[in-house]
Amino acid sequence: MSVHAPADTDLRQQVHDAARRARVAARTLGTLTSATKDRALHAAADSVLASVGEVLAANEVDLDVARAAGTPAAILDRLALNPQRVDGIAAGLRQVAGLPDPVGEVLRGRTLPNGLRIRQQRVPLGVVGMVYEGRPNVTVDAFGLTLKSGNAALLRGSSSARHSNEALVTALRAALVAEGLPADAVALLPSEDRATVTHLIQARGLVDVVIPRGGAGLIDAVVRDALVPTIETGVGNCHVYVHAAADLDVAERILLNSKTRRPSVCNAAETLLVDAAIADRAVPRLLDALRNAGVTVHDDPSEDDLRAEFLSMDIAVAVVDGIDAAITHVNEYGTGHTEAIVTTDLAAAERFTGEVDAAAVMVNAATSFTDGEQFGFGAEIGISTQKLHARGPMGLPELTSTKWVVWGDGHIRPA
Amino acid sequence: MSVHAPADTDLRQQVHDAARRARVAARTLGTLTSATKDRALHAAADSVLASVGEVLAANEVDLDVARAAGTPAAILDRLALNPQRVDGIAAGLRQVAGLPDPVGEVLRGRTLPNGLRIRQQRVPLGVVGMVYEGRPNVTVDAFGLTLKSGNAALLRGSSSARHSNEALVTALRAALVAEGLPADAVALLPSEDRATVTHLIQARGLVDVVIPRGGAGLIDAVVRDALVPTIETGVGNCHVYVHAAADLDVAERILLNSKTRRPSVCNAAETLLVDAAIADRAVPRLLDALRNAGVTVHDDPSEDDLRAEFLSMDIAVAVVDGIDAAITHVNEYGTGHTEAIVTTDLAAAERFTGEVDAAAVMVNAATSFTDGEQFGFGAEIGISTQKLHARGPMGLPELTSTKWVVWGDGHIRPA
Repeated sequence: MSVHAPADTDLRQQVHDAARRARVAARTLGTLTSATKDRALHAAADSVLASVGEVLAANEVDLDVARAAGTPAAILDRLALNPQRVDGIAAGLRQVAGLPDPVGEVLRGRTLPNGLRIRQQRVPLGVVGMVYEGRPNVTVDAFGLTLKSGNAALLRGSSSARHSNEALVTALRAALVAEGLPADAVALLPSEDRATVTHLIQARGLVDVVIPRGGAGLIDAVVRDALVPTIETGVGNCHVYVHAAADLDVAERILLNSKTRRPSVCNAAETLLVDAAIADRAVPRLLDALRNAGVTVHDDPSEDDLRAEFLSMDIAVAVVDGIDAAITHVNEYGTGHTEAIVTTDLAAAERFTGEVDAAAVMVNAATSFTDGEQFGFGAEIGISTQKLHARGPMGLPELTSTKWVVWGDGHIRPA
Repeated sequence: MSVHAPADTDLRQQVHDAARRARVAARTLGTLTSATKDRALHAAADSVLASVGEVLAANEVDLDVARAAGTPAAILDRLALNPQRVDGIAAGLRQVAGLPDPVGEVLRGRTLPNGLRIRQQRVPLGVVGMVYEGRPNVTVDAFGLTLKSGNAALLRGSSSARHSNEALVTALRAALVAEGLPADAVALLPSEDRATVTHLIQARGLVDVVIPRGGAGLIDAVVRDALVPTIETGVGNCHVYVHAAADLDVAERILLNSKTRRPSVCNAAETLLVDAAIADRAVPRLLDALRNAGVTVHDDPSEDDLRAEFLSMDIAVAVVDGIDAAITHVNEYGTGHTEAIVTTDLAAAERFTGEVDAAAVMVNAATSFTDGEQFGFGAEIGISTQKLHARGPMGLPELTSTKWVVWGDGHIRPA
């Protein structure tokens, strides 16, 4: 550990103190019944609604700062709250209250030949850290999912949403206290200093997992410097591969939806791969369709283009020589998020789904479907692009660990 | 990345080259049928048996080096092979061939309201690194489990077992080639230099997971320096808590078995906690029993004693004031491996199993039962003491990730 300036030492102490309080809270949260947690989620929703005046006033402060800094309109829109959006935030908490509680679910169990009864059951992770850059609603969504799964949440949001987040967390903590639950089930860490993130991801033994949500830079930094386990989320260089046996009507529809539905999200397509066997007729048609939809086509892509997660109305295009080359390209350039093939050929579909190494592989469906709500999870905390623990959209079960509980009757193991 | 001396750069290149070859092999391994993998496992067993002469000769070289270095007899015994042990190693491969193949198992699946068919299925992790200090049989066990789960194995064993490991891996690779499978399904990394471990755990993008098996020092170093995901294994400061309502006959039996059955393994008990309510009669009796069994009792334990994983015939003893203090002590000092309560009181058992944060919690059973074979997994690659991905004994399913496969019919997502 390098030498810290006093201010940094103070900040680390502050993060560690928050983590210790969260650990104490987590021990209580892990023992709550579903009914108690659901009542708390509804109380939190009520409290957010009752605080709408304070929340909107705080949001206005954040917006003023952002406007003064010349923040682009699209970013301002992501930051902005209004009564409808606050209603939506509260409704999200009630929705989580309606989801099944993962804690206590028995995943496996048996009676061993010696009579020992063993069962593997879901337990909370403990203290879950979240680092995010997004809109203020992420603060409340993360609280709802972590509380329902019996975890305490340490939230490190964007400094641009600082006042909004503080007002929301104040409302959440007030509801917890009114319900007789520990306020430290949720805490907001200081957002002014990037060092907060470092202290959070290095608080080994105090924090059980950190989930970074944001761009590739944030996620790389977190993975590189972390001493606590992390879950990589959401970097998506997603491909649509138009196979030789594709129906081009289907290909065009899926390509446009994958690229243009919401270009700024991680499940948007960033590269089009066209099979060489049909390139002559497919490439002009698909590129025309993209351009007509307002997409900038990088049809002579650089290596950087092929690796880019544009998150904008841009797409790289490459011609690949058959299914083998397509699979190799996707596994080389993809980020393991979502990959789609368009084909009428069953063998090609089977090979693509079997050999592409990604969280989700689509056959004749848009990449846009990789999403916890779409998959029926009710809500998601993020989309994991790593292979350990959770892969793809993460709902409530992914916020749990497991524990083996073994009941005996004085059993000892023979030598 | 710091500047490396040329030799170190070469070593890193060597590890990265091995990892790249393993990745290529892994793509093939992931598509093999269970029948093909099982045939290869039997062929590998045959090959090990056919190579018994070379293996024992190589082992003799390792033993000579170890003897010349003054290695203690217990360590020499762990290193030594003989015809019976080689038979056992081959039998282990055949046992893994008989276990169910985890790859392709469908964990969840449904047809969404829009008609998309989604299913979550098990897929191999890819390239699995293992760092271990143990006996040469670990080399073959790790190969068997990784092959069966469709993964390529990069093995970094102890330099003391170098010649034995090389002879075994040569036999395994010959069998793979004879079966028409990639030899790089298993590779042995150089063991002379600790830097090999560093290069392996920093080969992000080339290695999917590294599992360290060894003492706390190795595991801490791996977790600290790793850039690839790791699974912490096997450090066990396990407690036996004798509750106020314990049957002391049961307590004595469980305590002795937990401490003395095999003191050098991670599921051995290292601390006895006695409830203050029965300390007067329980402590003298239990300590006598321990001492009569040859255990050194640390009955006025230092903080270090309470944190120690002795792995020897030593035990720390502390008196705790009731179930709350016991749970707090275990959660503070335990390593999250295995914790046992001895009690006839149902409420105490429920509280202990509910609130103790560990991979396995035992009621009236010895800590020695935390073991993949005992749990019915057939074999284990290690015992995870972390909360993400896998917790407790890890068998074949724990060597897999998952993938969502989504089949549509030209589906696009509405705005």
